[in-house]
Amino acid sequence: RKTYRIAVIPGDGIGKETVPEGLRVLDAAARRFGFDLSLTDYDWSCDTYAKTGKMMPDDGLDRLRDSDSIFLGAVGWPGVPDHVSLWGLLIPIRRGFDQYVNLRPCKLMPGARTPLADRGPADIDFYVVRENTEGEYSSVGGRMFEGTEREFVSQQSILTRHGTDRVLRYAFDLAMTRPRRKVTSATKSNGITFTMPYWDERFAEMAKRYPQVTTDQFHIDILCAHFVQHPDWFDVVVGSNLFGDILSDLGPAVAGSIGIAPSANINPEKAFPSMFEPVHGSAPDIAGKWICNPIGQIWSGAMMLEHLGEKAAADAIVRAIEAHLAEGGPRTRDMGGNAGTVDVGKALAEAV
Amino acid sequence: RKTYRIAVIPGDGIGKETVPEGLRVLDAAARRFGFDLSLTDYDWSCDTYAKTGKMMPDDGLDRLRDSDSIFLGAVGWPGVPDHVSLWGLLIPIRRGFDQYVNLRPCKLMPGARTPLADRGPADIDFYVVRENTEGEYSSVGGRMFEGTEREFVSQQSILTRHGTDRVLRYAFDLAMTRPRRKVTSATKSNGITFTMPYWDERFAEMAKRYPQVTTDQFHIDILCAHFVQHPDWFDVVVGSNLFGDILSDLGPAVAGSIGIAPSANINPEKAFPSMFEPVHGSAPDIAGKWICNPIGQIWSGAMMLEHLGEKAAADAIVRAIEAHLAEGGPRTRDMGGNAGTVDVGKALAEAV
Ligand SMILES: CC(C)[C@H](C(=O)O)[C@@H](O)C(=O)O
Ligand SMILES: CC(C)[C@H](C(=O)O)[C@@H](O)C(=O)O
Repeated sequence: RKTYRIAVIPGDGIGKETVPEGLRVLDAAARRFGFDLSLTDYDWSCDTYAKTGKMMPDDGLDRLRDSDSIFLGAVGWPGVPDHVSLWGLLIPIRRGFDQYVNLRPCKLMPGARTPLADRGPADIDFYVVRENTEGEYSSVGGRMFEGTEREFVSQQSILTRHGTDRVLRYAFDLAMTRPRRKVTSATKSNGITFTMPYWDERFAEMAKRYPQVTTDQFHIDILCAHFVQHPDWFDVVVGSNLFGDILSDLGPAVAGSIGIAPSANINPEKAFPSMFEPVHGSAPDIAGKWICNPIGQIWSGAMMLEHLGEKAAADAIVRAIEAHLAEGGPRTRDMGGNAGTVDVGKALAEAV
Repeated sequence: RKTYRIAVIPGDGIGKETVPEGLRVLDAAARRFGFDLSLTDYDWSCDTYAKTGKMMPDDGLDRLRDSDSIFLGAVGWPGVPDHVSLWGLLIPIRRGFDQYVNLRPCKLMPGARTPLADRGPADIDFYVVRENTEGEYSSVGGRMFEGTEREFVSQQSILTRHGTDRVLRYAFDLAMTRPRRKVTSATKSNGITFTMPYWDERFAEMAKRYPQVTTDQFHIDILCAHFVQHPDWFDVVVGSNLFGDILSDLGPAVAGSIGIAPSANINPEKAFPSMFEPVHGSAPDIAGKWICNPIGQIWSGAMMLEHLGEKAAADAIVRAIEAHLAEGGPRTRDMGGNAGTVDVGKALAEAV
């Protein structure tokens, strides 16, 4: 019987409400599919910051290092600036553990409501693969002539061959596991003329190694338009840190799943633990009321199990979510019902 | 009787078909509203490049300098790389004439089809104001360790106080002319931590000077999602060169008008000529068949007249387009009809 060590970080706001429901469903899956989860809780959050001046202890990454995966709720709270909360917890984990792939399914679930007219589940089912460690989110930049009329700021965007090739490879490998075998590249080489042409070059190189994969590429402006007009065109979409960030919010929005979408921050080589978190944030407006929707967290749990090698258990959770949405199980307010967070978690644990 | 000197650059592909129709309607407006247009034609294009090795002559900008406005079709053709065609014609004009505002209306026209469910003309009516000269489209960057495993590229994004403040001011001034008086800022200061916090800082400063204007701001990822989910939230949206580029394609896509949307590249001080062009490109797939939709070009003509101070004439053109769409005048193929480019141009000239 296998045991997986999971580091659990509920974080801020509704993360404290969704994570227990995520764990409830994971626990049900573990019992049914015959494996164990050994959980270690970490209370790192903006609360911790208020008490200690740090989002996580100095040896935070070391404490997480031996876990098989990290299960995260949400990070961020009003009053604590993002460069403190996110750059003190979320970003250091992504980078420190070289989680260079950020993966998000964009899938119109049966029974979910897309804002698009005349679109059904068969039309929207793709993945966004985002580079998660370099690119536009760089640490190189600064300000000159501060406080004067000549003031300016500058920030570099950096693409390395190492960083670019490995995320492209992941996207092509993922496409090979899917029936359509198609990869779309997000670029902007007509406007951003140093970094993006390089991205195109590496994409073309990588495509040569995967002759069975169909490819195309669009500039990010028209690609965003196509997400709205032709979501059925896409299978696997790969983009830089910023472009992937944009597309992996727009994709779930188009699929009507932004409140329930999961995401995975993956180190594919498993040299470090990977991290799984819902796309939604800490939602200060509804936190503390136990009315938030835990499906994003639960779905993130399914992605975690898949990464750990428990594919059957992962599929069972995703099927339970699909059935739940299609058959009208208890719904939280955001989905037009009045069930509580716990009701949904219990129903899904039951179904698994 | 006023005379405006217009430099006309049809450019490539369908630009050669839409520009004459744009001029036809402008001519009708001039006759009705009592002003003259003095046109000078420039055949600068990818064809010119094939013949001369240059998209425009070395003194191109000087030749345009004395015109009151530039009326552009489309730039770009297969076989000529973007860094040649766009960076040899479009971008030099935008920068050389300090057209620091790129303005695009996102408006659901009566009778037009939005891809969104349950949205009518009252829900989508906003402007995207894009910074058009600096930011992510910078000329500072390069490549190191070329051809090795250590290879990387780097490109700076640069925001100056001068460049940032003036485009923000334009956005606030525009909002002051509109009933809702609201400005939304596109940012990403939680991820891009040198340039974007500065953008936020200048936005907050500018907002103080416009106490009657309501403001909000969103990170670009969730802002793109909101364009799809809540297009009714927006009045004037202001963004950097890249973010503005993305939003000003996504906005028209959401409004179902990407094939007919206009854009203006404006130097508000009128120190240099401004340039007006449709959002669509040269459309190689349908060029030469005279079946393309000229409405984007005609609507761009209306923006040009407004900039020249002929507001009544501009309004007449926009009203003619609205009536045409609502009442089902001749439609090109992209709008489900089988009229030709010229039919639509004639119908609109007639209506004006
Ligand atoms: C063609 C390209 C360089 C241009 C841009 O990104 O500025 C286009 O997308 C636009 O929006 O006018
Ligand atoms: C919170 C923010 C820094 C983060 C990002 O942009 O990476 C978020 O938008 C995400 O997508 O996980």
